[in-house]
Amino acid sequence: RSHVGGDVQRKSCWYEEEIEENLRWCFALKSILHTGATRYQDIQLLDTKPFGKALVIDGKLQSAEIDEFIYHESLVHPALLHHSNPRSIFIMGGGEGSTAREILRHRTVEKVVMCDIDEEVVEFCKSYLAVNTEAFADPKLEVIINDARAELQSREDQFDVIIGDLADPIEGGPCYQLYTKSFYESIVKPKLNQETGIFVTQAGPAGIFSHTEVFSCIYNTLKQVFKYVVPYSAHVPSYADTWGWVMASDSPFDLTAEALDLRMNQRIRGESRYLDGATFSSSSTLSKAVRNTLENETHVYTDEAARFIYGYNCAYKHA
Amino acid sequence: RSHVGGDVQRKSCWYEEEIEENLRWCFALKSILHTGATRYQDIQLLDTKPFGKALVIDGKLQSAEIDEFIYHESLVHPALLHHSNPRSIFIMGGGEGSTAREILRHRTVEKVVMCDIDEEVVEFCKSYLAVNTEAFADPKLEVIINDARAELQSREDQFDVIIGDLADPIEGGPCYQLYTKSFYESIVKPKLNQETGIFVTQAGPAGIFSHTEVFSCIYNTLKQVFKYVVPYSAHVPSYADTWGWVMASDSPFDLTAEALDLRMNQRIRGESRYLDGATFSSSSTLSKAVRNTLENETHVYTDEAARFIYGYNCAYKHA
Amino acid sequence: RSHVGGDVQRKSCWYEEEIEENLRWCFALKSILHTGATRYQDIQLLDTKPFGKALVIDGKLQSAEIDEFIYHESLVHPALLHHSNPRSIFIMGGGEGSTAREILRHRTVEKVVMCDIDEEVVEFCKSYLAVNTEAFADPKLEVIINDARAELQSREDQFDVIIGDLADPIEGGPCYQLYTKSFYESIVKPKLNQETGIFVTQAGPAGIFSHTEVFSCIYNTLKQVFKYVVPYSAHVPSYADTWGWVMASDSPFDLTAEALDLRMNQRIRGESRYLDGATFSSSSTLSKAVRNTLENETHVYTDEAARFIYGYNCAYKHA
Amino acid sequence: RSHVGGDVQRKSCWYEEEIEENLRWCFALKSILHTGATRYQDIQLLDTKPFGKALVIDGKLQSAEIDEFIYHESLVHPALLHHSNPRSIFIMGGGEGSTAREILRHRTVEKVVMCDIDEEVVEFCKSYLAVNTEAFADPKLEVIINDARAELQSREDQFDVIIGDLADPIEGGPCYQLYTKSFYESIVKPKLNQETGIFVTQAGPAGIFSHTEVFSCIYNTLKQVFKYVVPYSAHVPSYADTWGWVMASDSPFDLTAEALDLRMNQRIRGESRYLDGATFSSSSTLSKAVRNTLENETHVYTDEAARFIYGYNCAYKHA
Repeated sequence: RSHVGGDVQRKSCWYEEEIEENLRWCFALKSILHTGATRYQDIQLLDTKPFGKALVIDGKLQSAEIDEFIYHESLVHPALLHHSNPRSIFIMGGGEGSTAREILRHRTVEKVVMCDIDEEVVEFCKSYLAVNTEAFADPKLEVIINDARAELQSREDQFDVIIGDLADPIEGGPCYQLYTKSFYESIVKPKLNQETGIFVTQAGPAGIFSHTEVFSCIYNTLKQVFKYVVPYSAHVPSYADTWGWVMASDSPFDLTAEALDLRMNQRIRGESRYLDGATFSSSSTLSKAVRNTLENETHVYTDEAARFIYGYNCAYKHA
Repeated sequence: RSHVGGDVQRKSCWYEEEIEENLRWCFALKSILHTGATRYQDIQLLDTKPFGKALVIDGKLQSAEIDEFIYHESLVHPALLHHSNPRSIFIMGGGEGSTAREILRHRTVEKVVMCDIDEEVVEFCKSYLAVNTEAFADPKLEVIINDARAELQSREDQFDVIIGDLADPIEGGPCYQLYTKSFYESIVKPKLNQETGIFVTQAGPAGIFSHTEVFSCIYNTLKQVFKYVVPYSAHVPSYADTWGWVMASDSPFDLTAEALDLRMNQRIRGESRYLDGATFSSSSTLSKAVRNTLENETHVYTDEAARFIYGYNCAYKHA
Repeated sequence: RSHVGGDVQRKSCWYEEEIEENLRWCFALKSILHTGATRYQDIQLLDTKPFGKALVIDGKLQSAEIDEFIYHESLVHPALLHHSNPRSIFIMGGGEGSTAREILRHRTVEKVVMCDIDEEVVEFCKSYLAVNTEAFADPKLEVIINDARAELQSREDQFDVIIGDLADPIEGGPCYQLYTKSFYESIVKPKLNQETGIFVTQAGPAGIFSHTEVFSCIYNTLKQVFKYVVPYSAHVPSYADTWGWVMASDSPFDLTAEALDLRMNQRIRGESRYLDGATFSSSSTLSKAVRNTLENETHVYTDEAARFIYGYNCAYKHA
Repeated sequence: RSHVGGDVQRKSCWYEEEIEENLRWCFALKSILHTGATRYQDIQLLDTKPFGKALVIDGKLQSAEIDEFIYHESLVHPALLHHSNPRSIFIMGGGEGSTAREILRHRTVEKVVMCDIDEEVVEFCKSYLAVNTEAFADPKLEVIINDARAELQSREDQFDVIIGDLADPIEGGPCYQLYTKSFYESIVKPKLNQETGIFVTQAGPAGIFSHTEVFSCIYNTLKQVFKYVVPYSAHVPSYADTWGWVMASDSPFDLTAEALDLRMNQRIRGESRYLDGATFSSSSTLSKAVRNTLENETHVYTDEAARFIYGYNCAYKHA
C-alpha cells in the first residue's frame, strides 16, 4: 500500500457526470460541501478543482463557480438590452439566484419576480452561494415559491421581460409543459407588455450534434408564437458543450454590436465578463450545420406530449 | 456475479483522457482497432461510441471521425479562400491526411506538399482512415518524410499557402521551434509567395480559460512578423473545448461572408459541413474575454525557450 | 493536445465493472478481442493488462486467464478427490470449457456430460479459449445444448459427481430454480449414484461481508437434502472477492490433507497450480464471521421464490 | 442537463485508487471529511459508501471502518496469544490507534509504547477516529513521536512483543530500513525479552500473485534471524487483496486452535469479530502457490538496498 507518490492523493476524489449515455465528464474534487435532498430533487454543492464550486441537482451539474457567468450573462443581458426600458422582470425558475443577480445589475429594473417551485433549493443557494447574497437581499427582488405556470396564470400584472431558467423540455420531464406552443401563446405572451415585451429562455445544448435534442424545437415552437425569434449559443466549458438560448418578441431585434455596447455602458452596473456587442454578434451567428437544422425544423412542442405529466411541477433550471 | 442487466455491457469499456490535470473526458469504447508504437510516438485507433473512430497519439485524441471536419475545414478553407488563386500548398505535419483531403477539394490547387516526420503514422493513416484514401492517392499530393523546418529550409520553391498542422508550442515539446518569431520570419515567410502568400496554423485550445495557454501567444508572435493576422475559433465536441487557428499574411483579409460563400461555391468541390461565410464571420469574432487577452498579450515565442530541445524533431499535429 | 507523456497511452483504455452498486473494479485494456450477443446474453472477450484474457458475460467478468485456475480447480477437484472412483460427471452449465478441462485431468473419468443452454457461448469459447481446446476435443466429453434441469430430468443415467457451474441463485435471476431444495431433492439427488455420489456447486461470493448474499443460503439449502455438506472458499483476485463453493453427499468427507495429496498425485494428470491437501484444509476452514453466519442461517431456497421466472432458462455460470 | 434520474447523484462522487499500475479500485463517496498535509505525508478522511470511513495516506487507503478489524485483529492477537504472559508491547508506527486498541483488550498488558514519526497523523486520528478514543485515553498507552529505529536503539527496556505496523519495505521507500536483517538482528531482537519475546509485522500483500512483492522476502529475512517464523494471511475486502503478516520468535509457536480459543476467552476483553483458533489455523495455512514461493525465496533484505534513503524517516504503516 505504498508504491505511488504524493501527487496521487490530489487526484483521488472525482465527481463524475454522464453527459450522455456514452460520454463521461469528470472533475477532481476538493471537497463535498453539502449533500441533501429536497422534496423535489437531490442537491449537492461540490468544490471541484477545475471549475470551483459546483451546484449539482439530481446528478447533473447546474452551475459552476468559474464559468456560470457565461450562462447567466447570456440568458439575461441580450433580452434586457434589446428592450428600450426594462423595468419589470419575471423569472421562471432561477432559484440559484444568479439570474436575478444579473438582472439587478440593470439600472432600469424596478421589480424582479423569481418564481421557483423548490423552496429548499432557494434557501440552500441563499445560504451557500456568496456570489448571490447581495441579489437575494435586494428589495427589488420578490421570491415566490410556486409553479411558474400557475403563478403566471394567476397574476394580473404584466412584465417587460419574462425569462425561462428551467430544465429542458424533455417529454415526461418536469418542465415540458413550460415549453409548449400553447403555454407561450396563452400564458407567457399575455403577461408580456404587448408589442415591446421580450421572452427569453435557456434552450438546452446547442453544439454541432446536440442542438437537435431540444434547441431547434424550442426555436421552432417560439417561431409559431412570436414575430421575431433570435437563437444564440456559447461554449460553456463546465458543461462540455455549447449551450443555447432563444429570445423572442413581436418587436424586431435590430441593435448593432455598437448599440449594444453603448446600452451596456449606460445601463449595466459593473463590468460584464463574457458578453459585449461583438460577442453577441458572434453568439447569434450560428454555424452552418446548426443554422440549417433550425431553418428546417418542423417539430412544435404541444401539450399532447406532456399529457402524462400534467400537474407534475417544474423543479429547476436544468434538473 | 449476476446482479446487473445487459445494458451494463454496452458501457463497460472506456477510453479515458486527461484533458488537463484535474479534468477527465471518457468515451465508451466499441473496440480497439489498433495499438502500436512508431519511432516517435504511441498510436492507437479506437472505435468509440460517442465520436466514432478516434486517432489517439501518445494518449491524446487527435481526431475523431464524427467531428474532425470542424478542425480540418477550419484549418484549410479560410486561408485558401482568402487567397486569390491558391495553387501550391505546403503542410507542416498533417500525416493523418485530412488536411490534404480538404486542400484537394479546392479546384485551383495544383500541388500539395505534406511534410511529416513520422513515416509510420503516415502509413498507418493511409491504411486505416478510409475517409482519406482518395486524398492519399491524389497525384497532386507529394508526401515527404522529414522535419518540416529542415524541409522548408532546403527547398527552393515558394508556396501560396503554408499550413501548420503540428503539436502545440509547449516549451520542451517537440514542435516549439516551429512556432517562434525567427522561424516565421526567416523560414516560413521567405517560402511564401510574397505579398499574397498566406500562413495559417492550428493554435491550440481557445476556450474562455484555455486560450491563454498558447493561442494568445501564437497570435502575438505572428503579429510581429505579418501585417495582417486573424485569429478564429470553433467548439470541437470531441476535444471538450473550443479550438483556435491563426491566419497571417502581408495582404489584408477583407472578404465579406457573402464573398466567402461565393468563392466556396466556385472553388470547392462538394459540400462543406461546418464552414461557410457566416460561420467564419462568427468564428473570427472572438468573445470579449478572449479578445481582450489577445489584444493585451505581450509574450513572443523565441528560439531561446526552445534551446534545450533543438534537434528534437516535431512529430505530429497535436502530439 | 500534447502535455502528457507516452506512459498515459498505456493506461487510456479501461474495462470497468460494478462489483456492487457503490464499488467499481477497473482493468487497463490491451484490446477488445470480441464483442457479440447470443440469444441469451451479451458476451465479450477482452485482453486486460492485470488479468490477461477475460470472458465477460452481460457486463460481469466470468473468468480471467491468469486466475481462472483458482475457481476451476476449487470447483472440480475436491469433489472428485473425495469420491473413491469418479467415472461419470455431469456439468450444469460450464460452457466456457474450463470445468470440463479440470475434470478430464482425472484418470478415473470415463464420461463428462456438459449441459449448457447457450450454444453460441459454447462455440465462442471453443473458438477463442486456446487453453480449453484440448478439453473440447476430448472424446470423453459430450456437449449438450439444453436447460440443465430439463436435461437431468429426462436422462436415465446416473453420475458419480454432478457439478453446478451456473449463475448465482438471485430471485428473478435465470438460475434460481437450479438452487432450490426441491431441485436438489427430486432432480439432482436421484441422478447421483446413491450413497457415494457427490454434488458440488459454485456458491457465489463468500467474503466476510458478501457471504450473506447467497453462500450461506446455498449451504443451508443443501443441508436440508444431504447428510454431509462442506462449504469452502478462496480469494480470486480478478473477482475482487473471496469466492465460495459447497460440496454435498450422503457419504462423509473424511480425507486428511495428506490423503488428498496422495489421491491428487495418483489420479490427476499434470500439476495443479492452486489446490493441494493443505490448501483445501485451509479453504474449508472458514473464518469466524462466515462460519457463524452459516451455522445460523435459516433461509432455504424454494421454488416459490422462483415462480415468476419458471421456464426462463439458466444461461451461464455467473451470468 | 436533465435526462438521468435521481439515482445517479448517489453515485456521482468517487474515491479512486490505483491498486497497481493497471488496476483501479473505486468507492462511491458520501463525503470528504478532512483533507490535509502533515510534514511527512498527505492525509484524507473520507466517508465511503461501501466501506464506511476511510483513512487515506498519500493516496493509498490505510484503513476502512468496516473491515479494519481484520487487519488489526490479525496483526495483534496471534502474537500476544502465543506469548505466555504479554505485559509490555512496543508498536513501530501504528499512529491510527487501532493496533493499540486491540492490544489494550488483553488483560495481561501493562504497558504499550506506540512510536510513530508523524505527530500530526497521531493527533488527527485521535480527533477523528471515535473507535480509538478510549485506547488513546488509556493510561497504559504511551505515545512517542520519533523514528522507531532511533527510539528502539535508545531505549533500555525490553518488550514481550514488538509489533511492526509500518509501510511496506519498498526500496527507496520510507520504511525499508525497518525490514532488514540487520535491523531485526541488532535492534529488534535485543529489545525482546529473550527466548519468549515475539516479533510480528504486517508483511504487505499476500495474494496469489502479489505475495512475491514483499511478503515472501519479509518471511525469508525473518527466517535468517529467528528460529520460528509463521506467515499468515487474510482477505481484506477494502484492500482488494489478501494481506499478510509474519510472526517470529526463538520459542516455538505450538498452540492448537482450541488452545488459542481458550486463551482468547481468558485474556481478551470483548468479542473478536474476525479471529479465533480455527480462523488462525486457516490463515496460517497458506495456499500451495504462496507456500511454494515462501519456501523457495532466497532474497534477504539488507541495509545495502536502503543506503540512499538512510536518514529518511519511516512515516506510516502503509504509506
